Amino acid sequence: MIVVMKQHCDEEAIEHVLSFLTNHGLSGHPSRGVERTIIGVLGAVGPAGTPGSMVGINPALGEALESLPCVESVIRVSKPYKLASREFHPEDTLVNVPVPCVSRGAVSIGSDSVIMMAGPCTVESEKQLMTTAQAVREAGAVILRGGAFKPSTSPYGFRGLGEEGLRLLAKARSEFGLAVITEVMTPTDVPMVCEYADILQIGTRNMQNYMLLDEVGRASKPVVLKRGMSATIEEWLLAAEYILSQGNRNVILCERGIRTFEKITRNTMDISAIPLIKQLSHLPIISDPSQGTGRRDLVTPLSLASIAAGTDGLLIEVHPNPDEALKDGAQSLTIQQFQELMPQVLAVTQAIGRKVVTE
Amino acid sequence: MIVVMKQHCDEEAIEHVLSFLTNHGLSGHPSRGVERTIIGVLGAVGPAGTPGSMVGINPALGEALESLPCVESVIRVSKPYKLASREFHPEDTLVNVPVPCVSRGAVSIGSDSVIMMAGPCTVESEKQLMTTAQAVREAGAVILRGGAFKPSTSPYGFRGLGEEGLRLLAKARSEFGLAVITEVMTPTDVPMVCEYADILQIGTRNMQNYMLLDEVGRASKPVVLKRGMSATIEEWLLAAEYILSQGNRNVILCERGIRTFEKITRNTMDISAIPLIKQLSHLPIISDPSQGTGRRDLVTPLSLASIAAGTDGLLIEVHPNPDEALKDGAQSLTIQQFQELMPQVLAVTQAIGRKVVTE
Amino acid sequence: MIVVMKQHCDEEAIEHVLSFLTNHGLSGHPSRGVERTIIGVLGAVGPAGTPGSMVGINPALGEALESLPCVESVIRVSKPYKLASREFHPEDTLVNVPVPCVSRGAVSIGSDSVIMMAGPCTVESEKQLMTTAQAVREAGAVILRGGAFKPSTSPYGFRGLGEEGLRLLAKARSEFGLAVITEVMTPTDVPMVCEYADILQIGTRNMQNYMLLDEVGRASKPVVLKRGMSATIEEWLLAAEYILSQGNRNVILCERGIRTFEKITRNTMDISAIPLIKQLSHLPIISDPSQGTGRRDLVTPLSLASIAAGTDGLLIEVHPNPDEALKDGAQSLTIQQFQELMPQVLAVTQAIGRKVVTE
Amino acid sequence: MIVVMKQHCDEEAIEHVLSFLTNHGLSGHPSRGVERTIIGVLGAVGPAGTPGSMVGINPALGEALESLPCVESVIRVSKPYKLASREFHPEDTLVNVPVPCVSRGAVSIGSDSVIMMAGPCTVESEKQLMTTAQAVREAGAVILRGGAFKPSTSPYGFRGLGEEGLRLLAKARSEFGLAVITEVMTPTDVPMVCEYADILQIGTRNMQNYMLLDEVGRASKPVVLKRGMSATIEEWLLAAEYILSQGNRNVILCERGIRTFEKITRNTMDISAIPLIKQLSHLPIISDPSQGTGRRDLVTPLSLASIAAGTDGLLIEVHPNPDEALKDGAQSLTIQQFQELMPQVLAVTQAIGRKVVTE
Repeated sequence: MIVVMKQHCDEEAIEHVLSFLTNHGLSGHPSRGVERTIIGVLGAVGPAGTPGSMVGINPALGEALESLPCVESVIRVSKPYKLASREFHPEDTLVNVPVPCVSRGAVSIGSDSVIMMAGPCTVESEKQLMTTAQAVREAGAVILRGGAFKPSTSPYGFRGLGEEGLRLLAKARSEFGLAVITEVMTPTDVPMVCEYADILQIGTRNMQNYMLLDEVGRASKPVVLKRGMSATIEEWLLAAEYILSQGNRNVILCERGIRTFEKITRNTMDISAIPLIKQLSHLPIISDPSQGTGRRDLVTPLSLASIAAGTDGLLIEVHPNPDEALKDGAQSLTIQQFQELMPQVLAVTQAIGRKVVTE
Repeated sequence: MIVVMKQHCDEEAIEHVLSFLTNHGLSGHPSRGVERTIIGVLGAVGPAGTPGSMVGINPALGEALESLPCVESVIRVSKPYKLASREFHPEDTLVNVPVPCVSRGAVSIGSDSVIMMAGPCTVESEKQLMTTAQAVREAGAVILRGGAFKPSTSPYGFRGLGEEGLRLLAKARSEFGLAVITEVMTPTDVPMVCEYADILQIGTRNMQNYMLLDEVGRASKPVVLKRGMSATIEEWLLAAEYILSQGNRNVILCERGIRTFEKITRNTMDISAIPLIKQLSHLPIISDPSQGTGRRDLVTPLSLASIAAGTDGLLIEVHPNPDEALKDGAQSLTIQQFQELMPQVLAVTQAIGRKVVTE
Repeated sequence: MIVVMKQHCDEEAIEHVLSFLTNHGLSGHPSRGVERTIIGVLGAVGPAGTPGSMVGINPALGEALESLPCVESVIRVSKPYKLASREFHPEDTLVNVPVPCVSRGAVSIGSDSVIMMAGPCTVESEKQLMTTAQAVREAGAVILRGGAFKPSTSPYGFRGLGEEGLRLLAKARSEFGLAVITEVMTPTDVPMVCEYADILQIGTRNMQNYMLLDEVGRASKPVVLKRGMSATIEEWLLAAEYILSQGNRNVILCERGIRTFEKITRNTMDISAIPLIKQLSHLPIISDPSQGTGRRDLVTPLSLASIAAGTDGLLIEVHPNPDEALKDGAQSLTIQQFQELMPQVLAVTQAIGRKVVTE
Repeated sequence: MIVVMKQHCDEEAIEHVLSFLTNHGLSGHPSRGVERTIIGVLGAVGPAGTPGSMVGINPALGEALESLPCVESVIRVSKPYKLASREFHPEDTLVNVPVPCVSRGAVSIGSDSVIMMAGPCTVESEKQLMTTAQAVREAGAVILRGGAFKPSTSPYGFRGLGEEGLRLLAKARSEFGLAVITEVMTPTDVPMVCEYADILQIGTRNMQNYMLLDEVGRASKPVVLKRGMSATIEEWLLAAEYILSQGNRNVILCERGIRTFEKITRNTMDISAIPLIKQLSHLPIISDPSQGTGRRDLVTPLSLASIAAGTDGLLIEVHPNPDEALKDGAQSLTIQQFQELMPQVLAVTQAIGRKVVTE
């Protein structure tokens, strides 16, 4: 942490800051410039031995310092997340998921392979789900997506089939050998969703639902954490830190677009987040171009762009008849469109020296 | 709903849309222009007799229509919220809250009076809370704010005293006669918070935590619903609709700043939301300039601006010693600053022909 | 400037940075922490004796430092603007404008008085302008606004009457004693606009049209500099610095809304910019709630909010018949609405201890 | 255009709108719903025979309609641009640029080939430019970028060598056979820049500098139009329409990132703009990942993502010694990094069935 003093403040003010730091168990190192003095702060707080003890200065102290009369600003130097950071954990994390339909019986998300996840936005019926599951499996997907609990902006929208949807997902898994990813929306549902799903998904609106993060952090299943629609990358990694700090180290980040002023697309996919996350963190990152654009006609180009930028997987909405989807039909690919996407995915993946796990 | 056809599409495509509409129980009324045809859609869906039956077309149908090959776009005409709209409920909603310290024994939020709510960001100790409660009451506040459950961006930050914090708030109420507002973060905590608080607060990160909205919608206490940090006004009113549709009609909206590219302030307060909400909805709206700016030195001007724009109340963070606050000290007023704010609040309130309830 | 080294970098890397700094005439002062070292940088560059020599480190040096392999980040401490800063010029700047219709013959923008500027978005005809000028003068405005050169998002939109519009503005001045403010869009037009206008306006789209800023910086008339629609406050003050550094010290900033994701309003007025500019700069700041909201029904509440937050003036669009305006009719007040606004402006201005110059 | 009436407005109000439309040469076609009436508007305005006559309704009329008391909102159906739209001009526009160093003597931007443009952000010296030009040519670039006139956020920053810079660019062209692209910042400079450059560049800050757009619209050289940093896609295409409507049909759009709340990157590249522009317009689009990210380490992944999404070219900043660049060193690739980028570009381009013109 660095304290920037106001211009021409006197020695007494500097001493005040230094003693404030000492009182809080820190030490200050002033550099006196012609126009102003800056004070480097060393030492760390947080209960000793906890990850918090390593993540630098308590943010409340920074704010308190900023309130002192002669302080211009306080600049944080250390990253506020630790377990999620590549500095702390230099090797890539691989998240292993059992997938009966592939020869190895499992896939590693975050490895040199790109993982294809596809399925309907929402589980609507057995027929819809089974048709889609079979088709995406045949085209090369290894993980089936499908919402049983769906956040809906309007209270009058469709909110999913609930546990019945989970049962259908499990049935599709046993029939086609796909692993299953599905959203969990509230802490009390976590045990039930864990019974049926292979990967838990935290949706964009719940990225900062801290009690839910705590709960999935205590679960035994991997978690896909979608970026909040207006979250900075730092906030996103702090949300991952919540899960990691409860003991669950199998966290996969998912870029799904951020909110901007542009009106033609539902969100603006931040493709630069993919290589940035790879730098800042050891966690895998996947892309959701269906939510990320909100438009079926942009799913293919943004899928390929995600792969070219280094994504570890794609999460694609596919519906056997999007015109009749109960939710998000406008952004779902048809089965044929998904079939046409796959060879393009394979070609770009190969061009950047990675591969796609399909069997 | 209006369907805009692509340029120069043929009669068959138009017929296709019309029969799609008929199949879904709607009727279409085409206007054929030189360059393109538009189709007005009449009729409404949703289970008969429910509010949903009145809020126009199922959004999924709009998306399905948008997917048809000859459709350029689909434009929604009706507002997607109903119970929250002024069209449905033209008179202002008054939310009554029992306040022992005022002569009438209660205040009406949304009336011609501006209501002052103040207190610490977070309940830290009995001494801190009691000192603040007494001071803000003496200065004219009638509702005490204070967090017992606190969302923290970092898992290593202070997350509040929990039920002990609620007990201290209740003690402050019985001692000083202030009503109490405090945040509830997860559905299972709602009954407990209702035992202690007079008003439940839904924080910005939980504006779209739908299961929490459902739960407070079934509670018997009024709810302050903070705007999500990147929520549009429409999404905010839809979140209010969730609460209203469960039966709780005592919803108060709270503008607390939105996220923009500006870096000097934590958020950008959208003062225009105050008069806009008054037009679109019958619900009261209050302002939180502490969260809305993140800077103590901006709280007073933004408080006065909120009042001039028509706010029904102010929610102000006050701390007896902000330099030592465990959370958000940088945006808390000192007790003296709050005392200095009050006469300015009174003057501007009077200038626009309203009053402030202080006793 | 502060250089933050990567974690655990070796002494050689630190020496490399120190010698880099020495080579560029600066000195570095390292503070060695347990996890990382930070280096305070002292000394300043820029041709001696110029304002540049005082504004701290050349930004290119910062970027070069950031490129060094062991550098994590470079943090700028000094503000990048100088002439616009309150640190450099602690007293408020007053911009004097001759106004024949007031008893003193002039007004001071930035003083304890709020200045009312009103008129049509665009000068459309002699009749339209004269009617409006007379009405706003009678209601208490002292400066007449009106565009002769108009930026239009579409090349097929109305782009103003050009010099004929300027002549009509001058005529309105001689008839009603109002000062005139009007936009200039390109450097070659500056001399012509100076002949007719009392205040030059730089529009939001031209906030970073640097050659235009240079040119008005050499002009003898005051300049109203509108905030760019996605400009940060720092960029805005740097744009002011362009004008100031050419010698023109009569710069007035104008908040006119920024672009956000909200769709109901054209822009989101950043009311917090008003008190922030007062802190950071000595320059006056006025508000444009017509452009800032794009909706006539929000002009009055946002005018009052601006005054409560400390604005030095209001720039209001008024049209005798907004339904027939050639441009921006939806945000223009009618004459009657402007008349109704004035007493409210007077009341709120008085409530905060300022006054309005009307005669 | 569609007029949405307020709920339950009476027949008289509908008649008022219909006669308003008739008075302005348009016809209205009401659809009366249970809750509200909508009125489809047919007919077009603008001087007959001009492109304006085809682009639908004058926007001022829409605003005037919106001001009528019983009108809820006015919805525009037609796109406001015409010459830039794919509806008007279904075939892809190819922009031909003479390039001495390739065997055909020219390249076609917008064809099945991706065009590589590279060079320093700013021309600093003959040695810097020649070194870079030779290196990027040898690596496969065919167009040389380099700024002679540079927009600088601070008046104390480096603003380029001016005409001397142009001369050096022309020298590099004659020496290495590269075509030259360089920025023009003000209308009066257009003829001079045309003398030296093969492609004129309009920078992000000038996207809505309409007099500059008019002037390059009358020039004989192709124009690269960068997206404004907070421009919507529609505004960007309208800016292109300015140039096209003056007669210059050789317009190339350039995505260079938009402003969001994210702080780690300078801008957020909107990769979805690439396929969207291809749908909405016939104009070529290129990508600038250097400006688009502001970070050297993101240039390669965002280059590859742009290609995968369908970009027609890349504009890359390369500097022989970025640590000493006078401008934007932090985002410039070294020569070696550019050499390493090229084979990756070739691989991804091939994977999507296109090629790169290098000779």
